[in-house]
Amino acid sequence: METQCSLQILIIIFVAVFISANSRNPPETSVGSTSTPPRTRRKINLRLNSIYNTIDHNSNRHFSDTPLHPLDPFTVSEINKIRSILLAYEPFSSSFPPVHTLSLDEPDKIQVLDWKAGDPIPPRRASVISFIDGQTHLVTVDLNLEAVTGDVVSTGSGYPMLTTEDQFTASRVVLSDLEFNKSILARGVDFNDLVCVPLSPGRFGPDEEGRRMVKVQCFSSQNTPNFYMRPIEGLIVTVDVDKQEIVKLTDTGRDIPLPKGTKTDYRYTTQSPFSEVSPGTNPMSMEQSEGPSFTVENGHIVKWANWVFHLKPDIRAGMIISQAMVQGENGVYRSVMYKGFASELFVPYMDPDQSWYFKSYMDAGEYGLGATAMALVELNDCPRHAYYMDGVFASADGRPYIQPNMICIFERYAGDIGWRHSEIPSMGFDIRESRPKVTLVARMAASVGNYDYIFDWEFQTDGLIRITVGLSGMLMVKATPYENLYNISDTDDMTGTLVSENVIGVVHDHYISFHLDMDIDGPNNSFAKVNLVKEETLPGQSPRKSYLKAQRKVAKTEDDAKIKLNLYDPSEFHVFNPAKRSRLGNPTGYKLVPSGTAASLLDLDDPPQIRAAFTNNQIWVTPHNRNEEWAGGLLVSQSKGDDTLAEWSARNREIENKDIVLWYTLGFHHIPCQEDFPIMPTVSSSFELKPVNFFDRNPILNAKPTFEKDLPVCFATDSSY
Amino acid sequence: METQCSLQILIIIFVAVFISANSRNPPETSVGSTSTPPRTRRKINLRLNSIYNTIDHNSNRHFSDTPLHPLDPFTVSEINKIRSILLAYEPFSSSFPPVHTLSLDEPDKIQVLDWKAGDPIPPRRASVISFIDGQTHLVTVDLNLEAVTGDVVSTGSGYPMLTTEDQFTASRVVLSDLEFNKSILARGVDFNDLVCVPLSPGRFGPDEEGRRMVKVQCFSSQNTPNFYMRPIEGLIVTVDVDKQEIVKLTDTGRDIPLPKGTKTDYRYTTQSPFSEVSPGTNPMSMEQSEGPSFTVENGHIVKWANWVFHLKPDIRAGMIISQAMVQGENGVYRSVMYKGFASELFVPYMDPDQSWYFKSYMDAGEYGLGATAMALVELNDCPRHAYYMDGVFASADGRPYIQPNMICIFERYAGDIGWRHSEIPSMGFDIRESRPKVTLVARMAASVGNYDYIFDWEFQTDGLIRITVGLSGMLMVKATPYENLYNISDTDDMTGTLVSENVIGVVHDHYISFHLDMDIDGPNNSFAKVNLVKEETLPGQSPRKSYLKAQRKVAKTEDDAKIKLNLYDPSEFHVFNPAKRSRLGNPTGYKLVPSGTAASLLDLDDPPQIRAAFTNNQIWVTPHNRNEEWAGGLLVSQSKGDDTLAEWSARNREIENKDIVLWYTLGFHHIPCQEDFPIMPTVSSSFELKPVNFFDRNPILNAKPTFEKDLPVCFATDSSY
Repeated sequence: METQCSLQILIIIFVAVFISANSRNPPETSVGSTSTPPRTRRKINLRLNSIYNTIDHNSNRHFSDTPLHPLDPFTVSEINKIRSILLAYEPFSSSFPPVHTLSLDEPDKIQVLDWKAGDPIPPRRASVISFIDGQTHLVTVDLNLEAVTGDVVSTGSGYPMLTTEDQFTASRVVLSDLEFNKSILARGVDFNDLVCVPLSPGRFGPDEEGRRMVKVQCFSSQNTPNFYMRPIEGLIVTVDVDKQEIVKLTDTGRDIPLPKGTKTDYRYTTQSPFSEVSPGTNPMSMEQSEGPSFTVENGHIVKWANWVFHLKPDIRAGMIISQAMVQGENGVYRSVMYKGFASELFVPYMDPDQSWYFKSYMDAGEYGLGATAMALVELNDCPRHAYYMDGVFASADGRPYIQPNMICIFERYAGDIGWRHSEIPSMGFDIRESRPKVTLVARMAASVGNYDYIFDWEFQTDGLIRITVGLSGMLMVKATPYENLYNISDTDDMTGTLVSENVIGVVHDHYISFHLDMDIDGPNNSFAKVNLVKEETLPGQSPRKSYLKAQRKVAKTEDDAKIKLNLYDPSEFHVFNPAKRSRLGNPTGYKLVPSGTAASLLDLDDPPQIRAAFTNNQIWVTPHNRNEEWAGGLLVSQSKGDDTLAEWSARNREIENKDIVLWYTLGFHHIPCQEDFPIMPTVSSSFELKPVNFFDRNPILNAKPTFEKDLPVCFATDSSY
Repeated sequence: METQCSLQILIIIFVAVFISANSRNPPETSVGSTSTPPRTRRKINLRLNSIYNTIDHNSNRHFSDTPLHPLDPFTVSEINKIRSILLAYEPFSSSFPPVHTLSLDEPDKIQVLDWKAGDPIPPRRASVISFIDGQTHLVTVDLNLEAVTGDVVSTGSGYPMLTTEDQFTASRVVLSDLEFNKSILARGVDFNDLVCVPLSPGRFGPDEEGRRMVKVQCFSSQNTPNFYMRPIEGLIVTVDVDKQEIVKLTDTGRDIPLPKGTKTDYRYTTQSPFSEVSPGTNPMSMEQSEGPSFTVENGHIVKWANWVFHLKPDIRAGMIISQAMVQGENGVYRSVMYKGFASELFVPYMDPDQSWYFKSYMDAGEYGLGATAMALVELNDCPRHAYYMDGVFASADGRPYIQPNMICIFERYAGDIGWRHSEIPSMGFDIRESRPKVTLVARMAASVGNYDYIFDWEFQTDGLIRITVGLSGMLMVKATPYENLYNISDTDDMTGTLVSENVIGVVHDHYISFHLDMDIDGPNNSFAKVNLVKEETLPGQSPRKSYLKAQRKVAKTEDDAKIKLNLYDPSEFHVFNPAKRSRLGNPTGYKLVPSGTAASLLDLDDPPQIRAAFTNNQIWVTPHNRNEEWAGGLLVSQSKGDDTLAEWSARNREIENKDIVLWYTLGFHHIPCQEDFPIMPTVSSSFELKPVNFFDRNPILNAKPTFEKDLPVCFATDSSY
């Protein structure tokens, strides 16, 4: 808990900075930067040190890691090597400019596909994004040549992710401002309780171009760690993080009371004893008497049942599934997907106010889904018997750090049924056959500030892949003078639901765009829309007047594959290999199966929508292009939207019998309700990639049923009694 | 397995009859009817007896059952009593006419709501549907008065469900027909392998009115119990089951070969040994060291965590959830739903051919979801530690019989997360909180002929109810001359996918309509559509051009609540209690949350669509009316569609602040693929009923995390090693 201490001088107050300070800049490397004035720095150091003491440091076990696969992420020693190569290159050799991102520049697909286990891995190259003298540099480092082999200055709009240094700077600049301090005092907030978060500003026209900015919003953490529920409303400070100056201060909400934050602490240790009223259930566990059925080889190759795939943490996408392959009838692995990951996550809030309009986050490109994915909570985030994978990333000074237990992998038996049939005994067969469904899940949870995004990639033995996104964590709320609805004469200007006294949960959306580089039995695939169309019968043809017919249409160009889903114009969406047919001659493919989703309804020319134009359709198909991985663009912060999926796809390139990428955007509309306060029960939605004439028959026909003898004998542990 | 014996005379062949022979007419009671000629009867008896020997007879344990709740289904002794009351009533006293259905005539809602545990239960009344001298009688039997108190002759269209007797009759009539026998011989099918199923004919105009009919289709079970994959194509015999005569015989497919049915046997015992290629996983089990957290009191009251509800098997709906209540903050149970069940299930096939056009089943009203729900397979259909509930039903002769293990109830931990949040350590709080999600599932699986429908009602501690329907079992397939697509010059006249040699999986839909009598904090509720509408900002108002706003509109009449879902015109759908508000003044309610679904696209005036007009919208709201429970009508077989939800709702009654019923239809389009052959991996979809300002705050805030000490210590059983 916070210790209460009296305010001495403003500049030594604790400044909590937003987002991934630990991940992007671990304490050993991030503290003590030259731009922080000594007195502030000392305090920050102390706080950070105490925080970092609580972090599980596992880096020792990664010092000897060696890359064993062309797609393996950089190891600790490789990151150190990249840093030393950079240190020999101007301007890194003089004043090491901040590394905004450092990631593997993956070898060309052909090289990866040609590679076989045991082969030497292709040359390792790093892609480093750095901001130097007002320009974004895309630097390529070749580890084999031990040299910088590329240094391209970006000419498009947009900036790299903020570093922790940028975030410190923003908060420091704000705190040194007299007007800001006056406002905090006027609102009666104790500076000890002040938590300020640097928000990405979006981009709203020419005024906001040409400089890297952060909009700082502050909260009070008095009596609760759930400061998100105690916003200091209407106070937004726009900071130029390079010039280290305030661009604009908006202070419109002094008459709006600070919400009390009563009963907003959600931590177990601070709850009142588990009462009779609580919806308690006895603990449960998924147990396997013969142990889990999966293995993780060489750190990243996951093998389970009929599946094999490469899994790695990524600072931006969170996790990446590569080279997912499933066994055919003869046991040979067949390619399904070359690369799948969450490419961007767009979260527009629906409030046009001065202090809210800009809230239209692009969480992957602005904050990083991997950068914000902290260690999973064992037994609660993931079941017992889960395997945990660490992330190895580079901080702003180019040094490696470990994100422990960032991904978990587990087998899942949820009581579901793989297939079943009972035959009516009178049919002459007394049949009761059923197979339990066991699946494999790879999970990660990104805490992008207030929100938690749980990403699941679930693999089934019948060849299906289900991608689920769960939303939990805290609402982004707005303070209001109103304690309850009876006070409000006109609720029409409320932009959300009153979820607690003086707290409005503002309406917002979430859109997660997935990059799905499908390679069905090889890179060259086509996309077909199989439309169900009503046919009318001819007079006298049939007592039926109408029926549905599947009409298959193969997309020639990108325009043919821009899909807006419509319940009354239904289709299946197939990616198939035109060079391969099933035993019967059907095209072998996978279909994308959407489920519950939402579409963005913002104006196409609204600035956030332009930047997130990948939400203009639910489905797109593009030719594979290694420069087109991030649906909102490579450099997303403050981008104009000149490097989005919509821009690339506007070229209307050919996509038939090409190496193509399928894009699907999963959407959520969220009108908050009181149940979302002070922390939200998880809301989930999903979509599937499902084999369609890929297998010649049901691939789990001979799956084994569960027998009593297979199951474990379990006892309660002594300690619980 | 079938024993092969040579054909002697045609009329003593084995005739397998379709659908629920065991359930609607157990062997003790159904055999030996007067209309079956002796020689046929003897053979049928023998077969049925041997089948019934394999059924688990538990009726002994139900002989002493007593109803303890106003909604409890009839007990064995009550059914016997009803039968004896009927036997004193003409015409039952002379020749007992078949009982098509016999079910509890539930007391009026007000009586049930007023009833408290310990009170005597209200008078018990039975609703008996019988077909007497060409007329459908709706007979009411009062068990307390020991008298028939009502006998109404139906004047609308439609007939009651077929009895087993009807089904025997249909098959017998077919088999005695020379032309039919010639056709079977001409097709080279061994009569020993013949399996004939009585299909409901739908209703297609005046020719098909005025008599009870069945369309008989036959299959060969040679070398496989999966006879569905070996259809005798084009041979459809329409039988008048009362006159016991053939109305029409269609025989168009003699040139279409019988599909071979290779590798269609799906039974575990007949599979080749579990090969290396098989996608095997180690067995898993959901274990609870402290045992399950739910109880089933008095046979039907399920109590779990913060929930209590009444659960019972039903011959038609399969299972019915009644009086579902969840605890509020003070521990007091609050009403959520008075009654919820699957009301109808519409399955139109998309083929206008003579032998296919009529395939547009209404499985609940024509066959009965409870009548076809056989015993669940322990450890496979339901996990270990599940509780099983038997069905007690009446057969056609009015006698009771037991449908053992028809419903299972289990707690589910699927590795999912109830809520979570990680706080970035640099914010000053080192927080990693997560709560595992444990739910309660009530499950049933109806095997309506070829298809298996798995129904799950899942309850969450956060107040959410999720209703999931899973589809498995066998496709209804059409035989074709084509072995593969290369043979086919024009695939345009195919009405589905070639799923195996000479086998087409015909395109079809499934629509399951749920009756959801929501009673949020009491019977009188209203329905609101909360529409998300794009608002444009005024010039100069905001850098944002647009945002979404929630616009709430309360439905006055039924027309206001007829909803076609549209991704680009999104809404939430709230049922709320207008007399009750949350602490903050928000309307307290539940929302219906659709997910993946399908809409019927058939012509509104196509006969199947008229009968299933409840699929004209996804959502409807009607005033509560005890005569409006079955979305396709009470008497569905061959109905004209004059008693459907669409007809009732056309009156456009007032629904504001009334006792209202919410209807939701979950749909599936199914374009088959080879993976569905010879048995389909389960396809699922779901919708949710979710609290919205029903609770004043997150009701699972103080849920307990799982600790290692809570979990069991498990060992493999000795026998498995």
